[in-house]
Amino acid sequence: MAYDGTRYHGWQRQSRLPSIQGAIEAALEQLTQKSASLYGAGRTDAGVHALAQVAHFDTEHGFKEDEWRRALNALLPPDIVIQQAEVVDGDFHARYSAGSKVYRYQIRNAPLPSPFDIKWTWHIRQPLDFEKMTLAAKGFLGVQDFRSFCAAGAEVKNHLLEMKRVHIEKKGERLWITLEASRFLQHMVRNIVGFLVEAGQARRAPEDTFRVLSAGDRRAAGITAPPQGLFLLKVNY
Amino acid sequence: MAYDGTRYHGWQRQSRLPSIQGAIEAALEQLTQKSASLYGAGRTDAGVHALAQVAHFDTEHGFKEDEWRRALNALLPPDIVIQQAEVVDGDFHARYSAGSKVYRYQIRNAPLPSPFDIKWTWHIRQPLDFEKMTLAAKGFLGVQDFRSFCAAGAEVKNHLLEMKRVHIEKKGERLWITLEASRFLQHMVRNIVGFLVEAGQARRAPEDTFRVLSAGDRRAAGITAPPQGLFLLKVNY
Repeated sequence: MAYDGTRYHGWQRQSRLPSIQGAIEAALEQLTQKSASLYGAGRTDAGVHALAQVAHFDTEHGFKEDEWRRALNALLPPDIVIQQAEVVDGDFHARYSAGSKVYRYQIRNAPLPSPFDIKWTWHIRQPLDFEKMTLAAKGFLGVQDFRSFCAAGAEVKNHLLEMKRVHIEKKGERLWITLEASRFLQHMVRNIVGFLVEAGQARRAPEDTFRVLSAGDRRAAGITAPPQGLFLLKVNY
Repeated sequence: MAYDGTRYHGWQRQSRLPSIQGAIEAALEQLTQKSASLYGAGRTDAGVHALAQVAHFDTEHGFKEDEWRRALNALLPPDIVIQQAEVVDGDFHARYSAGSKVYRYQIRNAPLPSPFDIKWTWHIRQPLDFEKMTLAAKGFLGVQDFRSFCAAGAEVKNHLLEMKRVHIEKKGERLWITLEASRFLQHMVRNIVGFLVEAGQARRAPEDTFRVLSAGDRRAAGITAPPQGLFLLKVNY
């Protein structure tokens, strides 16, 4: 599914606030007249978007694959779109069966703002040093402990994960930072992007990456990029 | 200037409704403490956007060019951005000095909607016949009477104008229709786009263009495309 996360308090269901999971579960319950539990591949934060989020649910309802898609889209608001529905084996789990996830962060690097990408970019006026950012990014590759880039209050004990790809691309006034990893910790992409932007502003040396990773301390890594530039791009199975 | 026209009732100032002209005039008056009149190159409709609208005003205020830009942007909401300010000769008029204007209409031609371009496209699910549309578009070129494509209630007597360019481009799931003319009549681009879409759906023969133009009757031309796909792209002087 694709969604514009602007008006949602993230993927995860919350009792009184609108969430992506809550909106889709409500549509499922309206369709099947039974309570529904949806399991997503990645719990995107408030204001974060998705181009191809994946989620699964259990049902005994006899809809065909494309009937699910059409019926759910008819019930959902236009900022959430089910792109595909597929019947899977009983042992498939959207989150635990995933081999890796790909996130992309979009920066507008131009002196002037644009009225058309306020909802989809982090606007940074000063030119970022692309070479310095690319150099700093290399240090994230491989199996490493990402505790320094995990939200301070996150309930997770193991911070070890494999970063498979960090790619920085310049497209005119836009800068795309694409990350692929076995899993992602809370705020991890936004904290890595914050760090890379500081490297691009020469406020950090590109060699700092290893030092900050090995510090194992959130306070070593610096700023968190705002949510609206972040997209869950793909989940690989 | 660039603007996202979504929440405005068009370019033209209105007594109680938000307009682009009204918003910029209010910012000018706040800056100069004098009443201000802004003259735009094109009066975009409600919900229509601009990438490079041009407007002029008279002032005796001593700001430098870039000071105007920065001061106005500081006062304007984020969906209106002044991109450039320039001191011009006293005989320059944003509308009457313009040689031609370029508009672009953006269609999303794909089975599924996208949550990311609702505000910027007309979504058409059925595949449009690109060849038929291109053929129908050719008939608009040259000096012709566009009464059939002008809004029925428009207060204009002369419908003769020169269409300099009609270009249709396919970019993945998007279709761009770009028109350049000496001037544009009310709803003209949206009426032409509506006609071209009907040609692309084989609901009209591509040869119909001449017949509809020569009818000189709004009822001959068919549907009006919705405003959100339309952008004022450029004003040539």
